[in-house]
Amino acid sequence: MDMQQTLNDWHRMIAARDLSRLEDIIHPDAVFRSPVAHTPYKGRDALVLALSTVINVFEDFTYHRQFFTEDGRNATLEFSANVNGKQLKGVDLIEFNEDGLIVEFEVMIRPASGLMALGEEMGKRVGAKLKEFG
Amino acid sequence: MDMQQTLNDWHRMIAARDLSRLEDIIHPDAVFRSPVAHTPYKGRDALVLALSTVINVFEDFTYHRQFFTEDGRNATLEFSANVNGKQLKGVDLIEFNEDGLIVEFEVMIRPASGLMALGEEMGKRVGAKLKEFG
Repeated sequence: MDMQQTLNDWHRMIAARDLSRLEDIIHPDAVFRSPVAHTPYKGRDALVLALSTVINVFEDFTYHRQFFTEDGRNATLEFSANVNGKQLKGVDLIEFNEDGLIVEFEVMIRPASGLMALGEEMGKRVGAKLKEFG
Repeated sequence: MDMQQTLNDWHRMIAARDLSRLEDIIHPDAVFRSPVAHTPYKGRDALVLALSTVINVFEDFTYHRQFFTEDGRNATLEFSANVNGKQLKGVDLIEFNEDGLIVEFEVMIRPASGLMALGEEMGKRVGAKLKEFG
């Protein structure tokens, strides 16, 4: 498996809104860096929980540009979505290991109003649970 | 001029902390999308004002990974910095036209505490002035 295969799997899962096989493409020691919190969340379970929740929070989620590092081990996926009536833009910064597994997943969101709406909604749904991985 | 030349110029300006020639690499109709505000700021003057101010607000500013789209017309530059004691990570999403000029510059910042610190400091320094370009 390489990065491109993993990305294809990822896009298929998102299009089908079915993340039941998500852990197949994530390394057990993966790190999730949230757009809201400073402290990273550690381990595959944290990342699966965060991503499985956020796809139900985002409305009208659409990917746009894809950017890659020259070594083919890092990707940036640009997206737009709405959360509780607030429009937002964001990026997924994803690092892959040599086997194509996701080892780091970092999310950034703009503008501030969109980030706050997302943070509030994620806090309600998984805030306490996610903190256990901090 | 192409994207790579413009990026080389940009990195030289940042390293020298001298943005006096910044407008040479920006299209007159460039758009700046701030990490804080929803409404984009229009025109080269707005982008020059924002970038010239932010390099004085960021402490310990460092670029990390660089990502590119396959068409060679878009780049994502990952960075870290501190603002008033808050650590932050960010990305510059830059679109170039066929002449290598910057036509769009979008910034995203995490975590929320870093974004708030940046927004507060930028607001104090150029908030009213930037709004004129909204």
